[in-house]
Amino acid sequence: MEFNIAPPNDALRGPLQQKIDGKTKPLGALGRLEALALQIGLIQQTLTPELRQPHILVCAGDHGSLADPNGAGLSAFPQDVTWQMVENFLAGGAAINVFARANGIELVVADAGVAHDFGPRENLVDAKVSPHGTASYLEGPAMTAAQCETAMARGAQIVAGIHARGCNVIGFGEMGIGNTASASLITHFLAGIPLGDCVGRGTGLDDAGVSRKLTLLRQAAELYRGDHMPLSVLARFGGFEIAMLAGGMLAAAERKMLLLIDGFIVTSALLVVATLHPATLQYCAFSHRSQERGHRLQLEHLGTRPLLDMDLRLGEGTGAALAWPLVRAAAAFLDEMASFASAGVSESKKSTHAQTGS
Amino acid sequence: MEFNIAPPNDALRGPLQQKIDGKTKPLGALGRLEALALQIGLIQQTLTPELRQPHILVCAGDHGSLADPNGAGLSAFPQDVTWQMVENFLAGGAAINVFARANGIELVVADAGVAHDFGPRENLVDAKVSPHGTASYLEGPAMTAAQCETAMARGAQIVAGIHARGCNVIGFGEMGIGNTASASLITHFLAGIPLGDCVGRGTGLDDAGVSRKLTLLRQAAELYRGDHMPLSVLARFGGFEIAMLAGGMLAAAERKMLLLIDGFIVTSALLVVATLHPATLQYCAFSHRSQERGHRLQLEHLGTRPLLDMDLRLGEGTGAALAWPLVRAAAAFLDEMASFASAGVSESKKSTHAQTGS
Repeated sequence: MEFNIAPPNDALRGPLQQKIDGKTKPLGALGRLEALALQIGLIQQTLTPELRQPHILVCAGDHGSLADPNGAGLSAFPQDVTWQMVENFLAGGAAINVFARANGIELVVADAGVAHDFGPRENLVDAKVSPHGTASYLEGPAMTAAQCETAMARGAQIVAGIHARGCNVIGFGEMGIGNTASASLITHFLAGIPLGDCVGRGTGLDDAGVSRKLTLLRQAAELYRGDHMPLSVLARFGGFEIAMLAGGMLAAAERKMLLLIDGFIVTSALLVVATLHPATLQYCAFSHRSQERGHRLQLEHLGTRPLLDMDLRLGEGTGAALAWPLVRAAAAFLDEMASFASAGVSESKKSTHAQTGS
Repeated sequence: MEFNIAPPNDALRGPLQQKIDGKTKPLGALGRLEALALQIGLIQQTLTPELRQPHILVCAGDHGSLADPNGAGLSAFPQDVTWQMVENFLAGGAAINVFARANGIELVVADAGVAHDFGPRENLVDAKVSPHGTASYLEGPAMTAAQCETAMARGAQIVAGIHARGCNVIGFGEMGIGNTASASLITHFLAGIPLGDCVGRGTGLDDAGVSRKLTLLRQAAELYRGDHMPLSVLARFGGFEIAMLAGGMLAAAERKMLLLIDGFIVTSALLVVATLHPATLQYCAFSHRSQERGHRLQLEHLGTRPLLDMDLRLGEGTGAALAWPLVRAAAAFLDEMASFASAGVSESKKSTHAQTGS
């Protein structure tokens, strides 16, 4: 797969900043919304950006590590919860359904490799790479290089289809019991963060559970003899949903969409993507800081401060769905707010804009 | 004025928590949205709360301190900007208009005492206490006790009218050049915070400007010989828009509405209210942490952590408007999310809910 991802042309930065500064407000008074508006303007290469048809893509997959008799301690929930939650998505009863509805976001749910036969379902994208989920990284590679490429290509294809329907802003979410464990390993290898700092409670392990999870993941990391290239690490530790998200992100950045990044697992997919194509980061808005402990370190590694800090740790793209109104507000103020000139409002007594040192 | 403000009955706390814990998500995984949902349920005394017809009330007023020849350094903007911004509100071009429109919030703008004749205007509530704004607290009281009571009563009346139209959630915003100075003095006297910590850049003073502002406010504080009772402090330092907001908040809490608190100036009105009727605080959702320096200290004084931290310092109720989708999402998950039982999703392997120490 080849993706052509260039950073946004920076020529409009000056004019965009000038437009922002001319709005009827003290200079800089909209804080981080101003930086977001500037970013959106640069991505869309216009002084009047428009965010159209927001979508969230939720990819679901199962992890062989959870089915592995040695991996029983990796999650507080049984593996069946993956397919049960997908059914919950399809029935409209999960948190991501509620938040997407409340905020006017269209939800797309893709089966990347859930160990369950859903049969043909109208509102489920069947993108299954394997009917059994990944293999166990406690024994060997979670997926083959070919499977990894298939998952990424399917993610890219899904996003291309969403884009073709007129969408230019997309959030990413996931479901997969055991995938905080995968994300911990990916984060450890790609961001160089000690594994102990990457391992957290996931869906609700207690201290003893976290300790057992760390022991298992240390064994998995030690067993690995491959290189630390992003696709090698991704294939080794899975899951299919993470690979599918990575492919989707690359396709979205290539199409100059705005990407809404969710929590720990989605950010682990972004670590893969950003290592391959660092320019992708310029298309990302970071929606929230998860309470899953490794997420904070991922965000620091990427040098970014997310929009929300609500102690969420649910996944599904819920952080992205909750942050979307802030993103929409950023574009809206740039487009709709009056300027000092147009509204006949007197400017600050200092004729030049006095930066306030914020 | 007498307000009857009782804390919400706590009997539903257990059932509400049980309902929240039964939703299809790891225990506690919706973080601070869960606390917010619980609060809304308690305020409305139901397991199925409904937030109806959100409004934001923006009160505007002018400050005699700004017209005072000695008070020239109190703001980076001239006093005329107050009425000019009210015109901007009426024309729909200000940030609060944009955010209210984007998030489905109805805006009510009230003239509490702007030093400008707007004439009769369809979408402006004429609640003017004085056609000249307040008097200068650099010389004496900003308003008389009677004016203070009038402003509060009119605020209460406006909110009662909004409530009568079916609204049960209301945000508060303000416009008034010079009102961070008023808010600093009120905060100093009512929260016991050193004045130097309460004084910030407002609309954009530089360091020398802040220093001059502090000198002026120190003089105003030293000139005051009255008691530190909330209504005395409010009348002494104004402004009319702050008094009107305080009255509006009391009426809202009395009617068991949910109050969305904005930034530094709105919180100074709440300090008045909370000193009179501490139970009001249980009806408040704190929308954001302003970059105006005293706001952080006000929030610490009240022992609360706000929803957003976006480096805003604009006022107008913009923080409340931006936080509203989070509040709506909290009520929505409580009402709409499936439970483990209803969705047929397996619960955590620990049969009792293992609290994860968040």
